[in-house]
Amino acid sequence: MKRILISTIVAGFMFLTIASAQDLPENASEETKMCLSCHISYTPGIVYDWLESRHSKTIPSVALQKPELERRVSKPEIDEKLANVVVGCYECHSLNPQMHKDNFAHFGFKINVVVSPNDCMACHPQEVEQYSTSTKAHAVGNLSNNPLFTLLVETIISPKTIEDNKVVHGEASGLTKRETCYGCHGTVIKVDGMKKIETEAGEIEVPDLSDWPNQGVGRVNPDESRGACSACHPRHAFSLKDARKLYTCAQCHLDPDVPAYNVYKESKHGNIYYARGDEWNFENVPWTLGKDFKAPTCAVCHASLIADENGNVLSERTHNFDSRIWVRIFGLPYAHPHPKVGNTYVIKNADDLPLPTTFLNQPASDYLIDSTVMRERQRKMEELCQACHSSDWVEKHFQKFDGTVKETNMMVLAATQLLLKAWDKKLADKSNPFDEEIEMMWVKQWLFYPNSIRYASAMTGAPDYTAFKLGWWELSEKLQQMKNWIELRKK
Amino acid sequence: MKRILISTIVAGFMFLTIASAQDLPENASEETKMCLSCHISYTPGIVYDWLESRHSKTIPSVALQKPELERRVSKPEIDEKLANVVVGCYECHSLNPQMHKDNFAHFGFKINVVVSPNDCMACHPQEVEQYSTSTKAHAVGNLSNNPLFTLLVETIISPKTIEDNKVVHGEASGLTKRETCYGCHGTVIKVDGMKKIETEAGEIEVPDLSDWPNQGVGRVNPDESRGACSACHPRHAFSLKDARKLYTCAQCHLDPDVPAYNVYKESKHGNIYYARGDEWNFENVPWTLGKDFKAPTCAVCHASLIADENGNVLSERTHNFDSRIWVRIFGLPYAHPHPKVGNTYVIKNADDLPLPTTFLNQPASDYLIDSTVMRERQRKMEELCQACHSSDWVEKHFQKFDGTVKETNMMVLAATQLLLKAWDKKLADKSNPFDEEIEMMWVKQWLFYPNSIRYASAMTGAPDYTAFKLGWWELSEKLQQMKNWIELRKK
Amino acid sequence: MKRILISTIVAGFMFLTIASAQDLPENASEETKMCLSCHISYTPGIVYDWLESRHSKTIPSVALQKPELERRVSKPEIDEKLANVVVGCYECHSLNPQMHKDNFAHFGFKINVVVSPNDCMACHPQEVEQYSTSTKAHAVGNLSNNPLFTLLVETIISPKTIEDNKVVHGEASGLTKRETCYGCHGTVIKVDGMKKIETEAGEIEVPDLSDWPNQGVGRVNPDESRGACSACHPRHAFSLKDARKLYTCAQCHLDPDVPAYNVYKESKHGNIYYARGDEWNFENVPWTLGKDFKAPTCAVCHASLIADENGNVLSERTHNFDSRIWVRIFGLPYAHPHPKVGNTYVIKNADDLPLPTTFLNQPASDYLIDSTVMRERQRKMEELCQACHSSDWVEKHFQKFDGTVKETNMMVLAATQLLLKAWDKKLADKSNPFDEEIEMMWVKQWLFYPNSIRYASAMTGAPDYTAFKLGWWELSEKLQQMKNWIELRKK
Repeated sequence: MKRILISTIVAGFMFLTIASAQDLPENASEETKMCLSCHISYTPGIVYDWLESRHSKTIPSVALQKPELERRVSKPEIDEKLANVVVGCYECHSLNPQMHKDNFAHFGFKINVVVSPNDCMACHPQEVEQYSTSTKAHAVGNLSNNPLFTLLVETIISPKTIEDNKVVHGEASGLTKRETCYGCHGTVIKVDGMKKIETEAGEIEVPDLSDWPNQGVGRVNPDESRGACSACHPRHAFSLKDARKLYTCAQCHLDPDVPAYNVYKESKHGNIYYARGDEWNFENVPWTLGKDFKAPTCAVCHASLIADENGNVLSERTHNFDSRIWVRIFGLPYAHPHPKVGNTYVIKNADDLPLPTTFLNQPASDYLIDSTVMRERQRKMEELCQACHSSDWVEKHFQKFDGTVKETNMMVLAATQLLLKAWDKKLADKSNPFDEEIEMMWVKQWLFYPNSIRYASAMTGAPDYTAFKLGWWELSEKLQQMKNWIELRKK
Repeated sequence: MKRILISTIVAGFMFLTIASAQDLPENASEETKMCLSCHISYTPGIVYDWLESRHSKTIPSVALQKPELERRVSKPEIDEKLANVVVGCYECHSLNPQMHKDNFAHFGFKINVVVSPNDCMACHPQEVEQYSTSTKAHAVGNLSNNPLFTLLVETIISPKTIEDNKVVHGEASGLTKRETCYGCHGTVIKVDGMKKIETEAGEIEVPDLSDWPNQGVGRVNPDESRGACSACHPRHAFSLKDARKLYTCAQCHLDPDVPAYNVYKESKHGNIYYARGDEWNFENVPWTLGKDFKAPTCAVCHASLIADENGNVLSERTHNFDSRIWVRIFGLPYAHPHPKVGNTYVIKNADDLPLPTTFLNQPASDYLIDSTVMRERQRKMEELCQACHSSDWVEKHFQKFDGTVKETNMMVLAATQLLLKAWDKKLADKSNPFDEEIEMMWVKQWLFYPNSIRYASAMTGAPDYTAFKLGWWELSEKLQQMKNWIELRKK
Repeated sequence: MKRILISTIVAGFMFLTIASAQDLPENASEETKMCLSCHISYTPGIVYDWLESRHSKTIPSVALQKPELERRVSKPEIDEKLANVVVGCYECHSLNPQMHKDNFAHFGFKINVVVSPNDCMACHPQEVEQYSTSTKAHAVGNLSNNPLFTLLVETIISPKTIEDNKVVHGEASGLTKRETCYGCHGTVIKVDGMKKIETEAGEIEVPDLSDWPNQGVGRVNPDESRGACSACHPRHAFSLKDARKLYTCAQCHLDPDVPAYNVYKESKHGNIYYARGDEWNFENVPWTLGKDFKAPTCAVCHASLIADENGNVLSERTHNFDSRIWVRIFGLPYAHPHPKVGNTYVIKNADDLPLPTTFLNQPASDYLIDSTVMRERQRKMEELCQACHSSDWVEKHFQKFDGTVKETNMMVLAATQLLLKAWDKKLADKSNPFDEEIEMMWVKQWLFYPNSIRYASAMTGAPDYTAFKLGWWELSEKLQQMKNWIELRKK
């Protein structure tokens, strides 16, 4: 059952002439060939993933000769060391070693365990730069530097015990943080010295990384950069298809708190994608509307370079996924104008809290985009909509969305007033606003239900979802329950 | 970024020789060619969708030469004006202008914004006729002409405020109606005069449509016809694949109130579709059982013309999707024989309410199909099942379904008796039977949970769904909760 | 509409020369040809399914000439009667007639209705043997021979009535058992004599099977064997694609009680499968990692023969799906070491109950695998993980899982302590621990919520699901609700 002979390791530093080696790219660097010579046996999954990737077939200097619109690299000139070999193991895992606390000696090479956005900048600087200003890039700090969100996280995921019929909250473990909130937001990866591990190639020494593995969007890497490109371009395929289909986004953006995926599935756009998406091209650059795809996926509206068949750009590529979003519709009690900056923990509202609105929905306007920027972002989105829908259709669609934002905010306000009543009557203790029964009812009234309604409204679909599944029904029923909860205890 | 020069518009009335124009069909009418000459730039998404459609490649007079079983048009003779050109923009958007309140002058042509079933009748009269008698065609009136359903809608989706610790219901807005209940059922589209809008081609004047856009199945159109063919044959592709896959149906028929999609996904039929459906043919007419597909989707049992390989018809095409359904299992407290007519608001039960049963399950038999019609419909469905299952299998399957209808109706009756008790003891006020906590518990006992069990039973699957997800577990737990709710407040 | 002439039946015993007959395999036995001659008209769905199957194209004696690693049959020598014809209707439906209570005379042949694992052993003995020792093979008895599970089933699915504001439980019907719990677990199929049925071929006599149709994994067949191979290899396609895709498993292993499917969909593995799985090969034997597939489906980790491109075996095929599972994480209050045997109802814990732990989580260690076996199973799983992930990654992944098992067990213990309090204070009656409101709250605290967290932790994914959907949020909120429920009633 052992799939490799120990002798392979001894002979490791030469390019193996095993059957599969014939598929290995000739244009790989000597270093990458050496990586492959062992890893094709030890971790064939990674190697074959890479072998089908564009990276394994692309020589950057050749890639630069493409017309600008078709280019996947955004650096006008690529470092000579990287320019004339395919993008292999060593090209990515050896960059900027001085910055990488996770750099270690590995069979004669100095290797970084974690490839970071700062490394990807060698060919893709524009993408990294755009990303770095987004809320995603700050997803870790936006939780951990905001005391309210930190408290919410702790309250939910801490293990509890019962003492004297009281629920006592323990401390949330790092393990559980990593597989819940910080699974999507990202962890802070530190290097705790070196450790010895047993592998099929015998005992080797590797950096001991804390809070690893993790591919959260805001991950803080051992080189102190923020973000994990692999969150959306997974593992070693670096596939556009992966990032353009919806499943990558759906790992984090789904019900009950961010029901974008659920709403899309039930929308007409989703209907068409699921019925005919197998016939579309998810690899072309630019991505041609009408030819390559017939209905948008997440990436069409929020990220990709979209053109028409004559090469006219309908929508610019961006890796700051906030850049066509004018209202933020999830994660906070009230929908509100999008924050100006990605690191939202710097916000201070009139209650002196790091939130974009007060408890009763007064916006912290200094920290939020103004109506001019809002209109500009909306206009950019509408231009894309109009490639398939009439101007009137698009206008009426977003009028409807504006109404929905107002009505769902009203519903949150009503729930908040009931919570204030409960606090006022000492039926709950406001020192932790998230841990008691009536408080958890309130949290659902803003964190779960209105989001569905807003997403469905924004993304043209999901009437049943909005009415019954996780929207108006829940909002109305739970409001009634909050009222009754108070009433029953007042008596 | 502007993707079209203003000069294009000036030169608009000639067939553009742009790169993509070579793909435009030669057999289009002169009018359609003119539409395309601008819209390929302004709304390329629509045009490319159409270019891949059968409409863009079909000349009706040629289509009529096919053997009858293979025909997609049901009119024996097509109007001369339409017969010898492909089915383009102008052919559909210019019909019956005198009936269309949404007809308007558009660059020299008289154009209808909304193409209606009455227009589609030019080639597909049988489909429109069948559809027109169905519950779907009356989906708007079945809500808005039934005071009880109107009250349920208002109760759920009205924005609420808190006054003196009371939940006060505001008035449901048209915008929210349109994106919830009437998103599936359809809106009444009216023309409120003309309005000027800014487009990429400059300012133009268009009809100002109320409650638009909408593709609900019962939409009342500006020509007063009912229905939206685009609900299931979306936009300009008019694709059989779209309608035969399940995602179109799943836009409205999903949990918690109509969990057909959810149940299908977990059934053996769904399992086979998801595993191997990518190898099937969703375009052939007739649709050949065993060859084109291996397991049914919604359309197989409820709509499509199904034949065996020798052209023997196994099941007739119908656009009255009620026609093989004998028991109605959702949307009303008790499962009951299917109503005789599509406009169900005409029903009067012994309580003098427009519902097919009374509060305690006495059927309004005069308005419901009798046992002969029920048996006939069941027999038609069974014939199709028997193409893959033995007669005994099929018989036992529907015996099981009969039992499920009885047991789930028992559970609804139990919940109803508890509600009567609550009303009797003045724990709730029956003037609006949908707005208080115990009433909303009761609504879920008929609108959500029994439906899952009945759908799963009818559609051969989803045991886990039925047991734990949205079926028996919920029914039994919530019944206990209703009882306790009353008990706690009686004290 | 009748798709067959009565004369066909008269002429039934000859191989029809109808159009489709040309596709019928020449190498079928004479008996099978006779079956097909009628059934291609009566049940074309079954016949065409089979015609695309490997069975219809495979002559066992030829199949045996393949290299061992590529073989799909595990018997070294096949009975002469079966060896030289394709595997057709008669080959499977005529085996071991003396054991089959469902054997009957059918147009001159002696036919079994239900093909059982014991019949499949004619070519696939290793698979049947492995399966027979698994928990799946004992899925019926594991419910029906365990009085606690029997009580849980009855409590949930029995029809209820209201008498004097009490919820009165009726008796659960066989029909409902069959479409809920025993839909997945399997039924006991008995033969209640013969019955006459009307078919398109006229009246025929067939065995009258009770609790049929059913494809539950532990089905007890009329020949007294246990299991239904068709549960995962549905109907007459016997497709590897069906079994290797996830939808077969997802029929039973889904939320809220066994959320493997839900968690997979949101994991990175699932993301990659959904984005690119359409390009993979689901038919090859052995199944080559990296070449045939890029991310695991259920079968990769739990069932299939996995090799690398050079034919080195990475993981052995097994039909005992327990064999690489060391901790059981669902279906019982606490996660615990996997039971030693498949028939878990033999277990006795220190409370003298047939459960693997006591009420307060003391394990029934004599019946559970010890730490050596646990480590060995974990090591086997890890070897497969390491084909794509570094040793360190894999080690840290399972450390995290260990922590999750501990924390979720703590949460179950907290809920159990509250239940004990409620019983102690006579707020509920422990004679049936599943039927009262506080008891049903407790059941959800172990049957639904912790499982999601454990599955997500084990299967590398679903942080949002774990945090908010059906995990920590629910566990924490419902614990608070249990506490308040008691508090409110104590006063």
